Amino acid sequence: MQADHGRPRVVIVGAGFGGLAAARALTGSGAEIVLIDRTNHHLFQPLLYQVATAALAPSDIAGPVRSLLRRQKDTTVLMGEVTGVDPARRVVNVSDVGAIDYDTLILATGAANSWFGHDEWARYATVLKSLDDAAAVHDRLLSAFELAESRSDPEEVAALLTFVVSGGGPTGVELAGAIAELARFTLARDFRRIRPGGARVILCEAGPRLLAGFPTSLSGYAEHALGTLGVEVRVGARVEHIDGDSVTAGGETIATRNVFWCAGTQARPAASWLEADAARNGAAKVLPDCSAPGRPEVFVIGDAAHFAGRDGQPLPGLAAVASQQGTYEGELIARRLRGIQTAKPFRYRDRGTLATIGRSRAVVVVGRVRLTGTVAWLFWSLVHLFLLAGFRNRLVVYVNWSWAWFTYGRGARLITGLTSPAARAGKTETAATHHDESQPRQLVP
Amino acid sequence: MQADHGRPRVVIVGAGFGGLAAARALTGSGAEIVLIDRTNHHLFQPLLYQVATAALAPSDIAGPVRSLLRRQKDTTVLMGEVTGVDPARRVVNVSDVGAIDYDTLILATGAANSWFGHDEWARYATVLKSLDDAAAVHDRLLSAFELAESRSDPEEVAALLTFVVSGGGPTGVELAGAIAELARFTLARDFRRIRPGGARVILCEAGPRLLAGFPTSLSGYAEHALGTLGVEVRVGARVEHIDGDSVTAGGETIATRNVFWCAGTQARPAASWLEADAARNGAAKVLPDCSAPGRPEVFVIGDAAHFAGRDGQPLPGLAAVASQQGTYEGELIARRLRGIQTAKPFRYRDRGTLATIGRSRAVVVVGRVRLTGTVAWLFWSLVHLFLLAGFRNRLVVYVNWSWAWFTYGRGARLITGLTSPAARAGKTETAATHHDESQPRQLVP
Repeated sequence: MQADHGRPRVVIVGAGFGGLAAARALTGSGAEIVLIDRTNHHLFQPLLYQVATAALAPSDIAGPVRSLLRRQKDTTVLMGEVTGVDPARRVVNVSDVGAIDYDTLILATGAANSWFGHDEWARYATVLKSLDDAAAVHDRLLSAFELAESRSDPEEVAALLTFVVSGGGPTGVELAGAIAELARFTLARDFRRIRPGGARVILCEAGPRLLAGFPTSLSGYAEHALGTLGVEVRVGARVEHIDGDSVTAGGETIATRNVFWCAGTQARPAASWLEADAARNGAAKVLPDCSAPGRPEVFVIGDAAHFAGRDGQPLPGLAAVASQQGTYEGELIARRLRGIQTAKPFRYRDRGTLATIGRSRAVVVVGRVRLTGTVAWLFWSLVHLFLLAGFRNRLVVYVNWSWAWFTYGRGARLITGLTSPAARAGKTETAATHHDESQPRQLVP
Repeated sequence: MQADHGRPRVVIVGAGFGGLAAARALTGSGAEIVLIDRTNHHLFQPLLYQVATAALAPSDIAGPVRSLLRRQKDTTVLMGEVTGVDPARRVVNVSDVGAIDYDTLILATGAANSWFGHDEWARYATVLKSLDDAAAVHDRLLSAFELAESRSDPEEVAALLTFVVSGGGPTGVELAGAIAELARFTLARDFRRIRPGGARVILCEAGPRLLAGFPTSLSGYAEHALGTLGVEVRVGARVEHIDGDSVTAGGETIATRNVFWCAGTQARPAASWLEADAARNGAAKVLPDCSAPGRPEVFVIGDAAHFAGRDGQPLPGLAAVASQQGTYEGELIARRLRGIQTAKPFRYRDRGTLATIGRSRAVVVVGRVRLTGTVAWLFWSLVHLFLLAGFRNRLVVYVNWSWAWFTYGRGARLITGLTSPAARAGKTETAATHHDESQPRQLVP
């Protein structure tokens, strides 16, 4: 695909929060915009656990990229897998499509799951990064109860009714709370031979406390709130071994058939495509305007980038960071097209963070304000109802939430996937180091 | 699993319309009821094409069997694959669960897809029988447009934008209409390089007319209505060959990458389990009370059974037939438990049939009344809104439908399945003869 004569082409790889924000900021700048993603949809990942536990439908939290950018006539959306970049020739290679020329490139490729060097765990543990993963988690949860109902060996039944979540960041906390509620409320009266309310839910965190990105007092609240739902919280319990029958964490071996992996991420290969310096988690080290060193026409943003903040620490892997960087980059490129070459360095504005525990508790930090409990949860609901606009009409999401709230999600407990969770999990990439799951969730991207 | 002392056990295999109706009719009879299904949900199959084309969510048309029967304390629901029956020992064998004793057995195992002896077509064509199939059809439809947008060879683009539906029964008619609407309305403005409205949709039917189970005048109306949506209808065009690049039907070879197979069904193996006489499509021939000849404690109902109607013809493969047989059987067994051994033979009551073409046309037959067009469509909507109650609240379905109607289904166009359609389609069973797809859809099950 050759560039138009006269119209500079900006190629954006990745339609997550960063790539989408960049495309929106660039429209009308005179550039031809090409946005490439492996899937056809933008995903509101922070609510993925709600799809995994059937409170929301996939279409409530995801929207086709084409549809979201329908009015941008200067933007072409392509579904395809980018296999590499040739920065010398200024070409992006897309599987089955071929080479796409660019004048400016934005890599917003995000992060994949990380197994910390234990790729074999992918056979046994289920991750939660994509809509497919959410379906796999959902099917695995419900199948465990179904299998337990049909088995007679008490040890097998106990292992089937033990759920281990690895990782005490927001995803792990939210998932553990949701599993406990599913067992104790949603499924409570559906079975004749097993007692779903007796299921064990164990949350293992390698660090000293849950929600490490939040103030310490909120970590304590989260642990307490999970305890009231019956979740057993183990801090300082790094997962050392996973197989089909058990998990070993912090020296303790737990018999379980259900392991959910929310423990770490690994940046997708933007750095290796550019042959650029990378941090331990694979993220490409970038300059203060997010460009790759020595390549002012190439930018890396979001989870794929290692951006040193004012304190020297890298910015957390949050939707808010990616989104702000995308907007910043789009505006920077638009200014360049008008002949303005200078730019202020990127600065992240923290507008607040939040996480939920179960269906009526949350923790919220906005500046110096800290909220917990039902007030925080109501605040969380309103913010997310607002943020989800654009995927579907708000009425549908509101009705779905209300229905799930009053009925504990009775409606959507269908096991549909016949693909094994292991096969799905096997799609994730190779692993390296701990990254961002201890970070809080963004409030406003 | 041994039967309770003193409580006779009725085992029902299959939680479709037949099995569910039987379980409902049996509750309170004093029997212990065990309902076994391969999935955890009851599916309202007549609306599956709406999930395939994203007008409805899976949870709108399916509900967990446990949840539907939650109040029946005498009923145990098991998810498992029945591998065989030993009628001499009165045992059902369930994969991974073991042997389950019965005093009375109801086989309501339904029908699978039939390839008419061409199992190799499963590699290229997508079927529409389960929620997984609906997801595969949906992903295949949307992926075709995405791939076409990224390709430059005009012949490849044309083959990607040609959709062939095999089978002119209600499923084929409804699917072809929905694909045409998806291309012409929903996707019309989303692409930059291709024109989705120029996509070809071709419906091939081996017989002389569409909707063979309906009066001839309604077949003509359906053909006309499909024509106004741009669907090319080929009657007398039996599919002779399918490969990855083309379909040959009625002597004509059509270059296409997208084939949807709605042409025939094959009864699941109740007859072979019982070593009983079967019709050409594999359905077990049954006596006037639906029992297997020589085995008064074993009943076969629904699509798995070949029940000779008053005219000597077998009853059609409709939800209404299965449902009425299930209720009849449940009541018959309940009477036997009270010591009443005599029973009137089963009689099917035809309460009406209907099918839709696109989002505002339908055909309806109720007794001598025949409706077409918008009036028929409104009637169809009301009936289905009523029938779907129990899966989810009606408000959600109503909002989903309204939303899809006014926006042409903008909300739910997400490609999520990474499983290939061929792999999914490969799950279907081996093939034999034409069965019920020329039959109309039931009005009231």
